[in-house]
Amino acid sequence: MPFTRISLLRGKSPEYLKALSDNFHRAMIETFDVPPDDRFQSIHQFDAGELIFDPTYLGGPRSDNFVFFEITIGKPRTAGMKQGFYRRLVQLLAEAPGIRPEDVMIVITATPPENISFSNGVIYDGIPGGAVHQREQA
Amino acid sequence: MPFTRISLLRGKSPEYLKALSDNFHRAMIETFDVPPDDRFQSIHQFDAGELIFDPTYLGGPRSDNFVFFEITIGKPRTAGMKQGFYRRLVQLLAEAPGIRPEDVMIVITATPPENISFSNGVIYDGIPGGAVHQREQA
Amino acid sequence: MPFTRISLLRGKSPEYLKALSDNFHRAMIETFDVPPDDRFQSIHQFDAGELIFDPTYLGGPRSDNFVFFEITIGKPRTAGMKQGFYRRLVQLLAEAPGIRPEDVMIVITATPPENISFSNGVIYDGIPGGAVHQREQA
Repeated sequence: MPFTRISLLRGKSPEYLKALSDNFHRAMIETFDVPPDDRFQSIHQFDAGELIFDPTYLGGPRSDNFVFFEITIGKPRTAGMKQGFYRRLVQLLAEAPGIRPEDVMIVITATPPENISFSNGVIYDGIPGGAVHQREQA
Repeated sequence: MPFTRISLLRGKSPEYLKALSDNFHRAMIETFDVPPDDRFQSIHQFDAGELIFDPTYLGGPRSDNFVFFEITIGKPRTAGMKQGFYRRLVQLLAEAPGIRPEDVMIVITATPPENISFSNGVIYDGIPGGAVHQREQA
Repeated sequence: MPFTRISLLRGKSPEYLKALSDNFHRAMIETFDVPPDDRFQSIHQFDAGELIFDPTYLGGPRSDNFVFFEITIGKPRTAGMKQGFYRRLVQLLAEAPGIRPEDVMIVITATPPENISFSNGVIYDGIPGGAVHQREQA
């Protein structure tokens, strides 16, 4: 974790999508306490009429470059850290691939560690170092 | 918010999808305390074999017009409001685009306001009027 | 419920996807207290560059057969039951369609029963038997 679903209208180049993915992850590393190799994302490209968003509700004006990030986290973060992450994310995406801050929307959902299995049918017990320790369950 | 993922089998016309999107949003405005311009949805069209649902478990019989709504909300609603929304939604979808109530499934997930950034890397502070106020974080 | 989103790279045969779907559901029946007809899944096939995952973070090595399961549950389960489910799932998927345990990642999100309407705009009141009882709301 985190796992992030990225939603946008179809039509961007592979280079654009890579820059989007890379800078999203960079914002997570810099400001959201995410290790560099903790990278799990999916990119959903929607056809016209399949991604519907109001142009001015609580922000915008939103354009067809609108991008929506849904992030599932396993470890809690403070409100201050979230705010810092949102700010850094829009900064980096403006640099590359050149997305206006008005076009960036983010929603975070949290779930506890026992609700996550990264691999091999085990639950990570939280001990740093990257190894997977199987937690014995009652 | 709310943000809603709409899932159904591929093959409906653009007019059908628009009516589905419009009447879903109308139900939210009428019964779920959602402002008219607070509209954020994605429509996922699945090929045969990619959307799997039991025809009679706890309802149905479900047909190939089955539609699944996953709604993420930021503001809490009462159980009574949710029940009223579910009822109104199936009424409106039966009118247009003509979906049977048996074919409508809904799941709501909640997340707190600090977990949402609508635009510009800021968190909405809850003051009505549509303007985005940046909340200063500790 | 549960409702499960299954994400993987495009290119598998319909038989592979059916085996994946069937054995996922079998693990739920055997170890996760799910009735046999309580089956609701979506399968998202991603093109190259659209499903991004680190090969070795907390497990792996992950290959292009990586599959990610996001499960939304309405009824709570114990940590012990979750661990048993993760173990059984990787066992069954190794049997068919032949997915390595290193390639299996699972995230569970929970939501309360009033947040779910299976059909007909009503909330299931929890009485076994498969009938849908409408719960009168205040």
